[in-house]
Formats: sequence, structure tokens, C-alpha cells
Amino acid sequence: MASRINRKIVLVKRPTGEVTPDCLELASEPAPEPKEGEALVRNLYLSLDPTQQGWMKYDSYMPAIPLGEVVRSGGVGEVIESRSPLYTKGQLVSGLVGWQEYALADGGGRRMQVVPPGISAEDAVSVFGITGLTAYFGLLDVGKPKAGETVVVSGAAGATGSVVGQIAKIVGCRVVGIAGGPEKCRWLVSELGFDAAVDYKREDVGQALAAACPKGVDVYFDNVGGEILDAVLLQINRGARISLCGAISTYTHETPPPGPRHLIQLVVKHGHMEGFLVLDYAARFPEAIAAMVKWKAEGKLRSKVDVVDGLENTPAAYRRLFTGGNVGKLLVRVG
Amino acid sequence: MASRINRKIVLVKRPTGEVTPDCLELASEPAPEPKEGEALVRNLYLSLDPTQQGWMKYDSYMPAIPLGEVVRSGGVGEVIESRSPLYTKGQLVSGLVGWQEYALADGGGRRMQVVPPGISAEDAVSVFGITGLTAYFGLLDVGKPKAGETVVVSGAAGATGSVVGQIAKIVGCRVVGIAGGPEKCRWLVSELGFDAAVDYKREDVGQALAAACPKGVDVYFDNVGGEILDAVLLQINRGARISLCGAISTYTHETPPPGPRHLIQLVVKHGHMEGFLVLDYAARFPEAIAAMVKWKAEGKLRSKVDVVDGLENTPAAYRRLFTGGNVGKLLVRVG
Repeated sequence: MASRINRKIVLVKRPTGEVTPDCLELASEPAPEPKEGEALVRNLYLSLDPTQQGWMKYDSYMPAIPLGEVVRSGGVGEVIESRSPLYTKGQLVSGLVGWQEYALADGGGRRMQVVPPGISAEDAVSVFGITGLTAYFGLLDVGKPKAGETVVVSGAAGATGSVVGQIAKIVGCRVVGIAGGPEKCRWLVSELGFDAAVDYKREDVGQALAAACPKGVDVYFDNVGGEILDAVLLQINRGARISLCGAISTYTHETPPPGPRHLIQLVVKHGHMEGFLVLDYAARFPEAIAAMVKWKAEGKLRSKVDVVDGLENTPAAYRRLFTGGNVGKLLVRVG
Repeated sequence: MASRINRKIVLVKRPTGEVTPDCLELASEPAPEPKEGEALVRNLYLSLDPTQQGWMKYDSYMPAIPLGEVVRSGGVGEVIESRSPLYTKGQLVSGLVGWQEYALADGGGRRMQVVPPGISAEDAVSVFGITGLTAYFGLLDVGKPKAGETVVVSGAAGATGSVVGQIAKIVGCRVVGIAGGPEKCRWLVSELGFDAAVDYKREDVGQALAAACPKGVDVYFDNVGGEILDAVLLQINRGARISLCGAISTYTHETPPPGPRHLIQLVVKHGHMEGFLVLDYAARFPEAIAAMVKWKAEGKLRSKVDVVDGLENTPAAYRRLFTGGNVGKLLVRVG
């Protein structure tokens, strides 16, 4: 067997604010040979997620990525060789494959999920992957929307936000998305069925939200933090729920910027703010995937991916996450 | 009957940040004569509460106090004349008596609560009044502490904070108070039974908290907001609850200052932050008062009041709330 070359993106320097090009390096090595109990996976799509910048920087809910090692990343690939009873050659599997061309799967720390037949590689790593699961649990379990309520989501044209809004519509809510630029806003309303969209780059978010939410805000799914969180706090209804998924507006700062000025609104309105990590819900992933597969088959849930070709383009693509440059789930297709 | 004079503190200018002396004026008028269905109350103690600065400034959960009218305030008084079946001469009653010497009680918008026999006027407007009720529901209902957990409370030597810490001890928690100055800190530990106290004026709050909470923070009862909230966020445990009661550190600013930088901790730790108003729990006040009366009788709950004499001293006393000048419940004794 001709020895395969595994190209990979390695973390060589810890970013402090932005993930600058000097933090990452393209490297090559012989692809690993699967040992007994392992399978070799050829990666098809790599997932680009805001949370990875935290993994590059510090220990948190996962240890920091060690310097000199491949960047930890979700993704999906095809089993091309298996010495494990868990995996069969030709199967699609998803998991923490890393920003590289080949990965090893095993039954322990490198366990991957077999993608059920009928689910495409793209969907497995977007709407039915961590992204969609984040939307599902963060909205339904943390936000607890009821039919007739108003749900606002920021980062609405992003991977998670676009799924959040669609699920909120399925539940029977009025849905308002906050996104940057007229194109994204049009897409939310005309393609995804949002009731309204606020263009934070061109509108006064407070005024536009007030117009789009005449009955106030019952649930806010927050992907961005910062000033937009503040603007929404001023519009919440009594008993509102704020589901904190992330705060992408703060991730490129070297130290976290100051937070919202209007937390006192939580007191006056008896509001709840709750953060979550999708891994908190791991035991319930099958329930969520089953629901979302059904919604997709019924045409109620659309998946949108933004695909960049070539492993070597991963670092540049990653920076687009923080400049509002992507619509839907940002993926790298591995050459 | 010689006509009585009612002296009162009137709001003459809306404060923007601090409640400066020019916002309030001492005025006199003939005391009101009770009509059919009304009772005349001679006020004994007036309650000085941080929330009143909001009432002076803007419409919120209650309409702003109209300019030219007496400052809305809780308090306790004695019925000295009654033409209402609800009140009997000689009874103690508590309610929104206003910063004045006499008030009218009726069965409608000016309804007051009859203080049960055996409860003193001071206790009725402190530990068994809105202050104690705020501590009870904000800790037990919002914070949901379990025996063995660590509870942190800020403004710990204040009216509400000192009751919060004592109830948390009753529940079986480790209790750490944050207060300003060694005297207050000593009082919390040696008199009220707190396990530790952090002096935010002399210690690095983050370091001192870490030392006082070796197992992290499970419940934080926040009276102050600002930097102390930030310091606590960095120490919360998985599943922590933050009960937002107020943010006194922000009330003297003309516009709300920026909020905490570390809200992302709620995401990483799946933390809950929930605000509340004690009036949300009005239907359950009897349950809480019964519990607190019992705890006080058993010696488990101590009440501390800080009494200033003379209606005319109310404005100056009020400013002490915002400079850390009081220990326990700040009251003005009338006449």
C-alpha cells in the first residue's frame, strides 16, 4: 500500500484576540496506520465553529489544543479502512476529526458517530450535526418558546441562528432575525420564512426591533453578545428567556469587552438568562436528530452550507466567521 | 380636634444619577381627614430602599413618582383614627406610607397590611417586611440553594443581604458575604454566623472569593452588579444560579455603566441568571413571614436596623445607602 500523506493545520501559537495567520501552519506527515480497534477516516468536510477560537486559546470546558498539534474540529469523513467492529469501510462518520485530511476513529477517546444512511455528509456536519443540535436544545430546552410568542435570534444567518429561527417557526412563534446586510436579511424572510429581519449594520437595532416585535420579546437566542444583547434586553417581556449560546462579538478581543448595561431589565421583568453547551444534551441527541430529519423531509427545515474548497484555505475561511462573511454553516471541503 | 400638621418629603426634581439634595424638599400641609372607608395612620418608621431612586427617576414596574408629590416609600405606622372596618385604632399597619408623618389607609389603592400582634414596628418594616421577603424569595425561589452548596451574597451587611446569608445558613449552605470594611465583615462572621466575609474595599475580590469558596460558587445573590458580579462569574460552578436582586453599584450613574465582561461563564458552566421583584411573590408572603417568624423565635434569624431620627433627615440618610454607610435595614423614625 502506497503510504498516504496527511496534510493538517497545526496550532503553532496561541491567539490572544483574532486567530491571526501566524497562529496556524500547514504541515504534512504520513497518514496514520489504523491499529487493532481503529479505523482510518478520510475527511470530507471540516466544521468551522466560533468555539474553536476558545479551544486555541485556553482551557475551558475542553482543554486547550496543545501547541504543535492539529486544530481540534468537528467534521465528517468516510471510513476507508477498518480494524474496528464499530466501523465498516464506506461508512460516513462524524466527530472530532480535526483540521486534516485523515483521522483515526476508535471506540474510546476518538469515538465517532456513524452517520445513518440517507443523511448526506454536508447535512451530517451542519443541520443534523452539532450546529443543528445547538439550535434545537438552546431554543427548545433553554428558551422554551410557546406558540404565539416572539422569538428573536442574533447571528440569524449563521449556521445555528438560521436553524433556530426555522425551529421557532415550526413551534408557532413570530420570529425576528438579526443579521448583517440586506442580502442576509432578505434570505431570512423570503427563503427561511422569518417574519422580519433587522440589519444591524444599517439599522438602529433598538428601533428596528421595536418595530419588528410589536408585542415585545419573549425569547432571545443570543449568538453575539455585546451591544445587540443590550438592545434586546430593553425590549423583553415579563418572564422572558434569554438563551446564551455564544458571544461572537467578543471573541476577537484580547480581553473580554464590557457586557450589557441593561441587565437590570432581568430584575424588572423577572427575566431568565441561561447559558448552555450542546454537549450538556448529548444523551438526547437521537431525539433531536429524529425530529429534525422529519422536519427536513416535510420541507419545514432547510439547510444552508457555505463551502470553501481545500484544507489550505481553512485559516482564511475561519476568519470569515468573525466578519459576518458566511451565510449558513461554514465548511471546508477537503481536497 | 386641633388640626394636625403633616410634614412630608416631596420630589421636586427628577434625579439623573445620585439623589441630590435639590431633588427633595420638606413641605407641610394639614394632615388629611379620613373619609368614610379610610383610616388615618401616624407613621412610625419609614423604609429607605435602593429601589426608590428608580421610582424617583422613571416609569418602571411602578409609575414614576409625580413631581410635587410625596416620595413613595414603605413604612409602618399606628392607626390613630379609623372610619374603615379594616382597621382599628391602635393597630400597627404597614404599606406604602410615603416619606411623611401621616398617611391614609383604605381598602383600595391605599390598602395597608395589619401587623400581626407580637411583631414589633421595626421588625414589620425590616426582617418581616419587603426586605426580608426579598431575601426569602430571591434566595430560596430563584437561587434554589441545596444543603452543602456554597452561597455568596453581595451587599451582605445590608438589609436584604444580611437576611439572605442567615437563611442560607438555615438551609445548610456554606455562606460567604461580600461587604465593605472590616467592621461589617466581622459582624457578618461573628454575629450572623457567615462562614467567611470578603472586604471588597480592601481585598482583591477574585482572590479572596477563591480562598473563601474552595468548592466554587453554586448560588450568588447579587445586590450590587458591576465588577463584583464579574468577579463572582469567574468562580461559578456548573449549574450555578445567580439571583439578581439589584445593582446598587450602578444606580448613581447617569446612564447605566457597562455590565459584566464574563457572561460567557454562563455558557461554559450552564449557569442561570434570573431577576425578580418581590411583588412577583405577593401571594406567598404569608408562607414566608410564618417561616421567618419561626426562625427568629428559634434564634436562627437576627434582625438589624440602622435607625435615623427625624423626617427632615431622610434625604441625607437616603444617600448613605449608596455609600455603604448603613449596616442592616436603614429606617427613619418619624417624630
